[in-house]
Amino acid sequence: MGGTLTPAVRALLDCYDGERPGVKASLARILMHGKMRGSGKLVILPVDQGFEHGPARSFASNPAAYDPHYVFELAIEAGLSALAAPIGLLAAGADRYAGEIPLILKANSANSLGTVKDEAITGTARDALELGCSAIGYTIYPGSDRQYDMFEEVRAGAAEAKANGLAVIIWAYPRGGVLNKDGETALDVVAYGTHIAALLGAHIIKVKPPTALIAEPEARTAYDMTGIDYTALRQRIAHVMQAGFDGRRIVIFSGGPAREDAAVLAEVRAIRDGGGHGSIVGRNAFQRPRAEALELLRQICAVHLGENE
Amino acid sequence: MGGTLTPAVRALLDCYDGERPGVKASLARILMHGKMRGSGKLVILPVDQGFEHGPARSFASNPAAYDPHYVFELAIEAGLSALAAPIGLLAAGADRYAGEIPLILKANSANSLGTVKDEAITGTARDALELGCSAIGYTIYPGSDRQYDMFEEVRAGAAEAKANGLAVIIWAYPRGGVLNKDGETALDVVAYGTHIAALLGAHIIKVKPPTALIAEPEARTAYDMTGIDYTALRQRIAHVMQAGFDGRRIVIFSGGPAREDAAVLAEVRAIRDGGGHGSIVGRNAFQRPRAEALELLRQICAVHLGENE
Amino acid sequence: MGGTLTPAVRALLDCYDGERPGVKASLARILMHGKMRGSGKLVILPVDQGFEHGPARSFASNPAAYDPHYVFELAIEAGLSALAAPIGLLAAGADRYAGEIPLILKANSANSLGTVKDEAITGTARDALELGCSAIGYTIYPGSDRQYDMFEEVRAGAAEAKANGLAVIIWAYPRGGVLNKDGETALDVVAYGTHIAALLGAHIIKVKPPTALIAEPEARTAYDMTGIDYTALRQRIAHVMQAGFDGRRIVIFSGGPAREDAAVLAEVRAIRDGGGHGSIVGRNAFQRPRAEALELLRQICAVHLGENE
Amino acid sequence: MGGTLTPAVRALLDCYDGERPGVKASLARILMHGKMRGSGKLVILPVDQGFEHGPARSFASNPAAYDPHYVFELAIEAGLSALAAPIGLLAAGADRYAGEIPLILKANSANSLGTVKDEAITGTARDALELGCSAIGYTIYPGSDRQYDMFEEVRAGAAEAKANGLAVIIWAYPRGGVLNKDGETALDVVAYGTHIAALLGAHIIKVKPPTALIAEPEARTAYDMTGIDYTALRQRIAHVMQAGFDGRRIVIFSGGPAREDAAVLAEVRAIRDGGGHGSIVGRNAFQRPRAEALELLRQICAVHLGENE
Amino acid sequence: MGGTLTPAVRALLDCYDGERPGVKASLARILMHGKMRGSGKLVILPVDQGFEHGPARSFASNPAAYDPHYVFELAIEAGLSALAAPIGLLAAGADRYAGEIPLILKANSANSLGTVKDEAITGTARDALELGCSAIGYTIYPGSDRQYDMFEEVRAGAAEAKANGLAVIIWAYPRGGVLNKDGETALDVVAYGTHIAALLGAHIIKVKPPTALIAEPEARTAYDMTGIDYTALRQRIAHVMQAGFDGRRIVIFSGGPAREDAAVLAEVRAIRDGGGHGSIVGRNAFQRPRAEALELLRQICAVHLGENE
Repeated sequence: MGGTLTPAVRALLDCYDGERPGVKASLARILMHGKMRGSGKLVILPVDQGFEHGPARSFASNPAAYDPHYVFELAIEAGLSALAAPIGLLAAGADRYAGEIPLILKANSANSLGTVKDEAITGTARDALELGCSAIGYTIYPGSDRQYDMFEEVRAGAAEAKANGLAVIIWAYPRGGVLNKDGETALDVVAYGTHIAALLGAHIIKVKPPTALIAEPEARTAYDMTGIDYTALRQRIAHVMQAGFDGRRIVIFSGGPAREDAAVLAEVRAIRDGGGHGSIVGRNAFQRPRAEALELLRQICAVHLGENE
Repeated sequence: MGGTLTPAVRALLDCYDGERPGVKASLARILMHGKMRGSGKLVILPVDQGFEHGPARSFASNPAAYDPHYVFELAIEAGLSALAAPIGLLAAGADRYAGEIPLILKANSANSLGTVKDEAITGTARDALELGCSAIGYTIYPGSDRQYDMFEEVRAGAAEAKANGLAVIIWAYPRGGVLNKDGETALDVVAYGTHIAALLGAHIIKVKPPTALIAEPEARTAYDMTGIDYTALRQRIAHVMQAGFDGRRIVIFSGGPAREDAAVLAEVRAIRDGGGHGSIVGRNAFQRPRAEALELLRQICAVHLGENE
Repeated sequence: MGGTLTPAVRALLDCYDGERPGVKASLARILMHGKMRGSGKLVILPVDQGFEHGPARSFASNPAAYDPHYVFELAIEAGLSALAAPIGLLAAGADRYAGEIPLILKANSANSLGTVKDEAITGTARDALELGCSAIGYTIYPGSDRQYDMFEEVRAGAAEAKANGLAVIIWAYPRGGVLNKDGETALDVVAYGTHIAALLGAHIIKVKPPTALIAEPEARTAYDMTGIDYTALRQRIAHVMQAGFDGRRIVIFSGGPAREDAAVLAEVRAIRDGGGHGSIVGRNAFQRPRAEALELLRQICAVHLGENE
Repeated sequence: MGGTLTPAVRALLDCYDGERPGVKASLARILMHGKMRGSGKLVILPVDQGFEHGPARSFASNPAAYDPHYVFELAIEAGLSALAAPIGLLAAGADRYAGEIPLILKANSANSLGTVKDEAITGTARDALELGCSAIGYTIYPGSDRQYDMFEEVRAGAAEAKANGLAVIIWAYPRGGVLNKDGETALDVVAYGTHIAALLGAHIIKVKPPTALIAEPEARTAYDMTGIDYTALRQRIAHVMQAGFDGRRIVIFSGGPAREDAAVLAEVRAIRDGGGHGSIVGRNAFQRPRAEALELLRQICAVHLGENE
Repeated sequence: MGGTLTPAVRALLDCYDGERPGVKASLARILMHGKMRGSGKLVILPVDQGFEHGPARSFASNPAAYDPHYVFELAIEAGLSALAAPIGLLAAGADRYAGEIPLILKANSANSLGTVKDEAITGTARDALELGCSAIGYTIYPGSDRQYDMFEEVRAGAAEAKANGLAVIIWAYPRGGVLNKDGETALDVVAYGTHIAALLGAHIIKVKPPTALIAEPEARTAYDMTGIDYTALRQRIAHVMQAGFDGRRIVIFSGGPAREDAAVLAEVRAIRDGGGHGSIVGRNAFQRPRAEALELLRQICAVHLGENE
């Protein structure tokens, strides 16, 4: 859509002063699109779960979603800010739906068949440009034995992306190393992942909503000293925003496995109240029948926009 | 052969909208060749078993096949869609049989002497172009400890291939990681392999016909929810086609070790009935005496064409 | 600031005879800036602790420091010689504060979530130039199993940096290999790290103040032979300066975790008395309230300048 | 020497139809040189044992051979087809003996001091061209844990060599993986190594004469089915030639450790009778006194030429 | 110094026929310099022990040597053939002493803090050219698990060096693999290391004086067969020269840890009597007070020149 930038979007772009104009234009393309247009908030549809968890676990409950065109149309009809997916899926619809929705190339991927905590680079800035994408996205696993190789791959990919006017999104998912399963979503760890992504130069950071757990003993001391209460998710979201350069970086939150509408919306409200920039909703969108998905996405957008749900 | 595309082939090529014209021309060259010409189905002769299992296990039962010219002539005389083989074998006939059959460079290879689950890159897009190939093919082992390196090698090779107008085929053979031997051909795992190949950007995907086993516990839940019956191979093939972007990607099935004609043909009929795009028949072709092989290949083509066998 | 070089600065630059003029100009830019201007000493603010230890452990005690602008302004207002940080943090202020303080791109980083003793390259000379930096910095872990890979990465990065007129700083932190935790700060080990950094071609070397321990048995013999007393920190600092090409390389010392002002200043006096070229003060600066931090930094500068504290 | 190609050589070159003219010219240079000139057979002197086993084990029994000039002169005086050696040895005589004998750069090497089953790349096509070589040679260890890396190095080196008009020789020495020491020279394994080398694109393949052992259980079944007798070495050689694309690739056999003349000649006769293209004779040449070596080499050539020994 | 080459130097250079003129000029620059000028022998000062063993173990006994200028001046005043050191040390004096002594860039380095038997590449041919060096030097560890990677790094570095007119020196230090500590300096092993260095293409080879031990059982047989006596160091040196292409490669010997003058000189006489091309003397030079060092170096040169000591 584009058009004159709103003050909210201009304020966000000002956080990226010094960045190339082409990158700012790409960010603006996402922020000025669909229902969230101009609000400074964004809601993204990601469809990489077929890679991460397999096709049946992702699409069997709503088989229409096996078809890439379905997910393009879902994102477009719901008026979302962007669609994020691996190269093969984007290539299956990028031509037909060219220009109808901003695209994000998810450029590395893992799967549940293997046991190594790593991802494969499956796309490049060049691929993203050929497919007409506005951004490129990478997952990192801070803590894993391969983390430094992952950071270096992301660094190289991000540098090429920025030099070509693409925005860079990092999915920060700490795991491995000193962390057990619960630790992966601990407050200190989600904040740490957010901060690492920001320090690596991400424009948009995607993390999971944190639990009230503190995983690293040294971090517990730091949190205790402040005396701040992190009982409510809203409070924890606000802390994650601190870790995202005190709000100077766009941080959005994922929705996790499919759940009841009410649970999803309650979480979205906490993200909004904590100052989060938006949501990235995959399984809670494409695993529902189309009409239900559109209605839930409508409500999620409304919450972020502060409208009547 | 070429000529005006049939509606069946045009419909298939439309699934690759946005792809480079040169790649579409390469796909058309395969789809418009031989007995399967214009049907939207294809039957391929692969001869890489000498690398994978050794020469005696591959050719001792029909020693004529030690000669690369024999397999070229077998594929040509049987009117198959293409011949796939490693660089050394193609180089031994590419000049003599130039233009007589589409060629596919099998660009990575493993062998049975080693114990590491990986493959070596043994050819490049440049090699494929020099040999006059229409496509390049790679094996991936989703699940293995080296899988992400394999994906990255395939990504780089496929990108170079596409940029040069070559079609890309992925042989998806899950193994290692959480999988035991039976799990490698489980329904969920074959579907997963198919989906990964599609997400990696393959134009043609080659998998094994799946058994009725479900290997991943989490996947079992997903399949149970749907209540769909996967007792018949035909039904399982249809599910694999779903995992191949709901039919938007060409998926073909391998025949496995040499068996009785009747068993081979029964499997091919199930592939046809489940909506598979064709067969890739190696050992059941070159391990039989020439006349027998030609007759069986004739029958396989007839099944896929829906003709009188 | 710049201007005619003082004799102290000219003497220092003469130690780098043969180096490219662009590099000398970059060194001069740092040495001729702020309160330490022209003294031949320098005080740097590093802000990479958010990467190394996490955001809460770094900033929770003074939440204003979550904002990159805060640390830019702290370094500027305190009149420090330079600000050192990873790419993402520098990018968040390089444009707004362009030209107000020399910048050092900290080009590799690790974190406390993982267990592998290595760092990831997170920035390049090209990045440093784009951000207007005067220098690029790398951490090395002499002793660790990855040390030789780290040295090779630093070598390549440093060569590119020097060829582009950037100064090169090495943070030498021995760990792993034959060393236990105490050994990491032993006198012989800190001196060794300093010497390795000098031999690798660093212009500025950053190490921790050494304890009186000697970690390597063979080194103990060498120290015993000399009969020199290393009881006082001042004496140990002087020895580290020997290891830095007998004073021909700029060696500065870090301050470690936040402590009482008196302890910090006592250590700084020993660094001064031992002939050290300055301090790099992170946590003792940004973890204090702004006014306290400015006052402590003022005192540190005064000590190094030999002024009334 | 060169000159009009004989029918035997032309027939061999025709097996490489489609290959670049420069490569054919290089093959012809070897096949049209020395005593074996025009026969379609070849006898090569390899001198890389100093690298593989050490200098004393290689040359102590005939110290004259420590001097690279000695081995150049031995190969020239014996009228052999070519001399193969690592870069350092070739460089010590390539200028002085320029044009007197075709040279083969042995481009990777291992030694007996280490325990890792791998080789180092020690030369390139560029080196071979500078030294005036006609071919480049690589060892592969099918079965070893590093085999796929080796194949990839050979692929890259061979592609560069062919593009520059050099012939490519592969020394195929299976080891490691599922093989024990005896298995390395088993009939099925030597045939397998030969076939892999052919599939990798080698123009000339060098293997050891196989024993009557069958190492892989699955291969035993295949051999049993055929009912063919492999008691005589001649029969085993003939089978290896099958594995070499049924005679379409030049396959030569090594002589192994120094032995009695009679034993050497008996083996050479079996190689000739089995259809082998020649011999590569190192230790049985340079470990004998010069006159004895020349006489044995004369007899070996005579056997391959079918002349009166 | 340069000037018309002496017959001794011309004879040495003739061993490198076919090598680039620029490389011969670099060798000549070293061979025509200082006290050894024109003799065909050379004495080199290496100063990389600070990297390998740490600064205190290297310089504490003569603290003046902490200063790079000291070692430059020591080598110049002693009239040595060249000074060899890592990039950082050379860079600290290359400008000031430009043209006063040939320089050798020691381009890889290890240290005693780690436990991995490998070295890091710390310099390149480009660095050597910028510093005005005549040669570049690499250490290899034949036998170690990383040996093949080291050989490949040296190959690449040496190729670039030669193409730019630099001579190449290899420090051959076998260790690891089948060797225990004593085996590292065994006669067969030192000869083996020398031979590998020659085969890798080194112009100058540096090894340790061998003991009378034979480490490899297979080598023992070879030595026993010859019936030659290796009791005297002189005899062992002569054998190492055989392994150096029978004298066609320059082989020089290191002096090891600091010892009494008499012991050093006795060893140097054996090197001379065995036909060695010279000595490389580090710790026995810079660990003595300046006057003593100059006197010992004068005597070492005199021994090699066959002059009155």
